[in-house]
Amino acid sequence: MRQVAVVGAGMTRFGKHQDRSMKDLAREAVENALRAAGMEREAIEAAAVGNAVAGLITGQECIRGQVVLREMGIGGIPVINTENACASSSTAFHIAWLYVASGMYDTVLAVGMEKLFHPDKKRTFTAIGSAIDLDIADEFARQMSGEQSGGAGESRSVFMDYYANLARQHMARYGTTREQFAQIAAKNHTNGSLNPHAQFQTPRTVADILAAPLIAEPLTRMMCSPIGDGAAAVIITTAEKARQFTTKPVFVRASIIGSSQEHAADAPGIVEKTSRKAYSMAGISPSEVQVVEVHDATAPAELIIYEELGLCGPGEGGKMISDGVTQIGGRVPVNPSGGLLAKGHPVGATGVAQISEIFWQLRGEAGKRQVAGAKVGLTENGGGVLGGENAVASVHIFTV
Amino acid sequence: MRQVAVVGAGMTRFGKHQDRSMKDLAREAVENALRAAGMEREAIEAAAVGNAVAGLITGQECIRGQVVLREMGIGGIPVINTENACASSSTAFHIAWLYVASGMYDTVLAVGMEKLFHPDKKRTFTAIGSAIDLDIADEFARQMSGEQSGGAGESRSVFMDYYANLARQHMARYGTTREQFAQIAAKNHTNGSLNPHAQFQTPRTVADILAAPLIAEPLTRMMCSPIGDGAAAVIITTAEKARQFTTKPVFVRASIIGSSQEHAADAPGIVEKTSRKAYSMAGISPSEVQVVEVHDATAPAELIIYEELGLCGPGEGGKMISDGVTQIGGRVPVNPSGGLLAKGHPVGATGVAQISEIFWQLRGEAGKRQVAGAKVGLTENGGGVLGGENAVASVHIFTV
Repeated sequence: MRQVAVVGAGMTRFGKHQDRSMKDLAREAVENALRAAGMEREAIEAAAVGNAVAGLITGQECIRGQVVLREMGIGGIPVINTENACASSSTAFHIAWLYVASGMYDTVLAVGMEKLFHPDKKRTFTAIGSAIDLDIADEFARQMSGEQSGGAGESRSVFMDYYANLARQHMARYGTTREQFAQIAAKNHTNGSLNPHAQFQTPRTVADILAAPLIAEPLTRMMCSPIGDGAAAVIITTAEKARQFTTKPVFVRASIIGSSQEHAADAPGIVEKTSRKAYSMAGISPSEVQVVEVHDATAPAELIIYEELGLCGPGEGGKMISDGVTQIGGRVPVNPSGGLLAKGHPVGATGVAQISEIFWQLRGEAGKRQVAGAKVGLTENGGGVLGGENAVASVHIFTV
Repeated sequence: MRQVAVVGAGMTRFGKHQDRSMKDLAREAVENALRAAGMEREAIEAAAVGNAVAGLITGQECIRGQVVLREMGIGGIPVINTENACASSSTAFHIAWLYVASGMYDTVLAVGMEKLFHPDKKRTFTAIGSAIDLDIADEFARQMSGEQSGGAGESRSVFMDYYANLARQHMARYGTTREQFAQIAAKNHTNGSLNPHAQFQTPRTVADILAAPLIAEPLTRMMCSPIGDGAAAVIITTAEKARQFTTKPVFVRASIIGSSQEHAADAPGIVEKTSRKAYSMAGISPSEVQVVEVHDATAPAELIIYEELGLCGPGEGGKMISDGVTQIGGRVPVNPSGGLLAKGHPVGATGVAQISEIFWQLRGEAGKRQVAGAKVGLTENGGGVLGGENAVASVHIFTV
């Protein structure tokens, strides 16, 4: 397959954009990406657009990509609408990459976009909750209803119960502590304070995180990703054409999507399996990765993902965060953007936003949150629930 | 890119499956496709799953493919969920093809599935209506509300108003008659009577079609595709591996997705533009095509598509149907399956079902509706509204 390069990226600030439509958010992201690439929209030969829940939030269940792209005068090209829950737009990027890598098209746009805020809060939570097999979610909710001490009540996503459960298992097995989860959240909130695109831009201490309202033991609210709106876009092309647009192309070295198996409990984790394939495709080992964006839907998820990505050994995630290895300035900074916890998590926008961050990091354009000298970057975007049935993992590796 | 072959196909009967879930319908289609290919499910390396409106009908907005495949023990593989309105599953097929053609995976499953019937009929129509930019649909509905003589009232889809408009334009421009539209519907209903998978299996005459209730002049109910549930699946692999499974592989010679441009009115139609690219990719001319499945959402659409596909000249669609050219036994039979009008149109299932039909036709396995000796087949699957903003067209060409 052909070598593929990212040549432009753009995104909106993530957050509560109650007065802006999804079309409007997508337009800002795409126009920023075109401007960054120094490219006219006519150069775009195809597009892949990731979105998770607009059907339930806005009613626009179909042709979501065409509807937003036409608004900005991009038409007459193949538009592939992809969905993979929280991994919807890394899946869009994967399809865009496949188009270029296969030789089908040269220059392709990948967009991620989401409106989550709705005046009816219940609608937002119903939409987010649909990223799990609804039959299984119902069963889980019944099981959990007897065990939990409460929390944010109706407005709490069933996801947080899953993640709390996962965190408690890790604590019991490896002695991981609440403070270590809080260290992850504090790091990401502090990184987010350096990122103008982040939903939350206030630095937080471990004490702040632990003092936040309890959602489900051991998760406090600041260990959980917020609800948000936003969009992100990247433009990719062939390695050859990339030279026309930039002296600093960022090459896609691996693009792998994985889904969990029926009996996931006994098998290696989905992130582990998927990332192994990506390392093999890229010919790069975990120790060579210098900057990482992961799917920290909750703080414990990030810690577990350290292990599954092979950035440390099994059970060593707690030590890794406590030793400062993953902070900016550490050996392998994770989520310099602030991650889902602080940058925000407009579901379908997250995957392409992670790729945008790695694009900026590898080009040395990440401003105050720049990881010095990073040449190898990785993104991990998850869908469904980590370790759960019907989970999705998407791993991409990039180099300059 | 590598040559790709279809080696198995399966589908449910289309129709009102009120007692069956989408999981159950998809399972039947996939198991039939595996059986037809003589393949174990473990051979499947990746899947692309097309669905249009399950989010609005069943609430399962996300990871629709994973949820249905896991039920049948297919997991641990990349699953790409695609959406392109009524072209959702031909888009899934396109992605599956891209996976194999690019060399990424060898053996890939493409599934199309839809549940449209819901106890609350309004929900069904809201879901179908979302295949248009909702802002545009609102405006159109306002314009039309003063012009129309009524029809099926609330249960009428806004789509039928679009298509009635298109039909009236064709009549005014070329002298096409209501009887010619009725001839198309009569042909498709008669073909459907030969197809055990068809929703409607009663042969109909031109008089029957014209006597059906008027939906919007000149469309009678029998000129409009019905609401239905169903699923279809095909399995593709490399030309080399195909020989392990079958002595009759059906080769994919072209796979093109197109979307309409901003000012579609002055430009060539979307089916014309998309099919030209497909003919060029396949190195096959329109006159070489021997069997065709097209997106007859309404009878006039099929007639217009004859012209856009180059099966006849502009304005000659009426003559083509009147001369019997497109009936089984004619020079180029169109919709031997019964098409959307009689086989049915469970939106997200239609694209893969069309491909299944061409697979059976080219292998000589189409039973009573067999087109004798067909070696070159074409499918055209549309999304949104033909000739409208945000339309999608997907054209595939196959040979044995």
